[in-house]
Amino acid sequence: MVTNTQLRLVRRPSGRVSNADFERTEQPIPALADGQALVRTHYLSIDPTNRLWISDRAQYMEPVALGDVMRGIGLGEVIESKSPRYAVGDQVGGLFGWQEFCVIGKGAVPAQSMPAIPGVPTSALLGACGITGLTAYFGMLHLGSPVEGETVVVSAAAGAVGSIAAQIAKIKGCRVVGIAGGPEKCEHIVDRFGLDAAVDYRSPDFADRLSQMTPNGIDVNFENVGGAIMETIMGRMNVGGRVALCGMIANYNESAPMLGDFSPILMQRLRVSGFIIGDFAPHFAQGIAQLGEWIREDRLRYDETVVAGLEAAPAALNQLFDGANLGKLLVDVHSAEH
Amino acid sequence: MVTNTQLRLVRRPSGRVSNADFERTEQPIPALADGQALVRTHYLSIDPTNRLWISDRAQYMEPVALGDVMRGIGLGEVIESKSPRYAVGDQVGGLFGWQEFCVIGKGAVPAQSMPAIPGVPTSALLGACGITGLTAYFGMLHLGSPVEGETVVVSAAAGAVGSIAAQIAKIKGCRVVGIAGGPEKCEHIVDRFGLDAAVDYRSPDFADRLSQMTPNGIDVNFENVGGAIMETIMGRMNVGGRVALCGMIANYNESAPMLGDFSPILMQRLRVSGFIIGDFAPHFAQGIAQLGEWIREDRLRYDETVVAGLEAAPAALNQLFDGANLGKLLVDVHSAEH
Repeated sequence: MVTNTQLRLVRRPSGRVSNADFERTEQPIPALADGQALVRTHYLSIDPTNRLWISDRAQYMEPVALGDVMRGIGLGEVIESKSPRYAVGDQVGGLFGWQEFCVIGKGAVPAQSMPAIPGVPTSALLGACGITGLTAYFGMLHLGSPVEGETVVVSAAAGAVGSIAAQIAKIKGCRVVGIAGGPEKCEHIVDRFGLDAAVDYRSPDFADRLSQMTPNGIDVNFENVGGAIMETIMGRMNVGGRVALCGMIANYNESAPMLGDFSPILMQRLRVSGFIIGDFAPHFAQGIAQLGEWIREDRLRYDETVVAGLEAAPAALNQLFDGANLGKLLVDVHSAEH
Repeated sequence: MVTNTQLRLVRRPSGRVSNADFERTEQPIPALADGQALVRTHYLSIDPTNRLWISDRAQYMEPVALGDVMRGIGLGEVIESKSPRYAVGDQVGGLFGWQEFCVIGKGAVPAQSMPAIPGVPTSALLGACGITGLTAYFGMLHLGSPVEGETVVVSAAAGAVGSIAAQIAKIKGCRVVGIAGGPEKCEHIVDRFGLDAAVDYRSPDFADRLSQMTPNGIDVNFENVGGAIMETIMGRMNVGGRVALCGMIANYNESAPMLGDFSPILMQRLRVSGFIIGDFAPHFAQGIAQLGEWIREDRLRYDETVVAGLEAAPAALNQLFDGANLGKLLVDVHSAEH
């Protein structure tokens, strides 16, 4: 009998996650009811928000309850169906969780059809041409509102969302400065993504270097990190600047408030907009069409780090906080190494 | 010979201002050059921003230099003119400073013509029908963007800007909850300004009371105060809420960063917009026309506290931080008590 391997949250982590925060369980695959289908998950998306979901911090969804399968975004294939909405062989995405198989449809997990996009690899449907790319696209264009010739700064610019956001600002004709950790990543984001400059936040002269690279100040901050990096960027914002507040990963391993200085918001008359990508769901189709076009034209590039096997997911999550991954971080659930 | 009494900044205050931070000087009134006019200042506007201007905090204008006449917004009458722009008897406003007379025009202080408005007392040209009212008007309508039926919270709601902002939200059909210090002010803002509820921030059950008075959460925060009051409001913001960041007076007597929690901005997808009223200068005429109409219709009420004599200005400034004034705080520069 085929069983369903799952990772369940059994303890709220304090600080970094550990394998002991999760329990591996094996369950039979449930029989499908009418209106349901069974998905074999191929990729799981590992995102900073996974860490939020297992904290008891006030957040945009209910935290994952202790004992529940860990929440996670997945992409997979329908392998059995009692639903007219899903046919065997369909590619679908949704909150499938950290498990090998997921029941979708009526009374179970909602799923979206995610057909192949010409010229775009499957894995990118969770990345540059999926939720990650959409986050960058709507955050940058709708909230950052970059204007040709302006200076745009993107933190975590070697990361999944940051690298796409930075390139979109380049496409819009801005001077784009990326922030990343270490000289290799800094070199990479200039060479591969065509950014105008990169600044290493680990460097002792980070603030001075950011000033040098943004001689006309900063008009748009696409903020992924929070903490000291955000403060340094905020100190260089121009009057009327915009901040697309996408994430504050510097704070996610802690339970303290995500403190920042409101003074620049007031003095420089900034517009700071928090968002999550779900807010833009009605516009996803348009965004995916544009991202796909840019990828096919090689105007938009992306990196991926694929980790083998479901049980590598907790350690993979920590990679995001170490900056150990390059680009989109995925778990290949049924990989041979599993 | 008529002399010009002035208050000059001679020391940057630490904490509350004191009379010793200013020096009283007497100077002859300078002879006018071509293109200039002489104004006898009638009222000075005392605003939280006066306190910012004498700090060395990064801010939206250069701080007042030590030795300079203290910066302040004034309203006065042209009493002598060598300028075709200003006729004797004209009523004008501008940054006339803490002094009895001010030279305006070419190479001197810029001044705006501020003619009488039918049905509006002169003093209100600095208040409800002037910069104060405009601050409330544009901040609430352009940045708070209240929609009929939404819940709006205004801090410092018995103050000059807050009382107007709160009434504008009422005019737009919102549930409006004002925050003020002490039961008398709370009663006053409900009775006089028609707010739906008032919450006393000095009360030990402030947070619980605010929750009770905003059963559907908060859609718009017109923020005048910052600090703990802001944090409490931010903790009740609804998804998609707007914050018009007008001021953070709780921080102005200190030099520390104006820290606040960015978490609600991210989790509730708020739009936080800092502003100063000068940003809306092209629209002032329209705003003043509307404010004047509401005042004449008695749909917009305001309070004034008028302090007698130039030398009372420093103590008056402290009143703002004590909540000792009601409504707009003005200095009657040439008052008999002077």
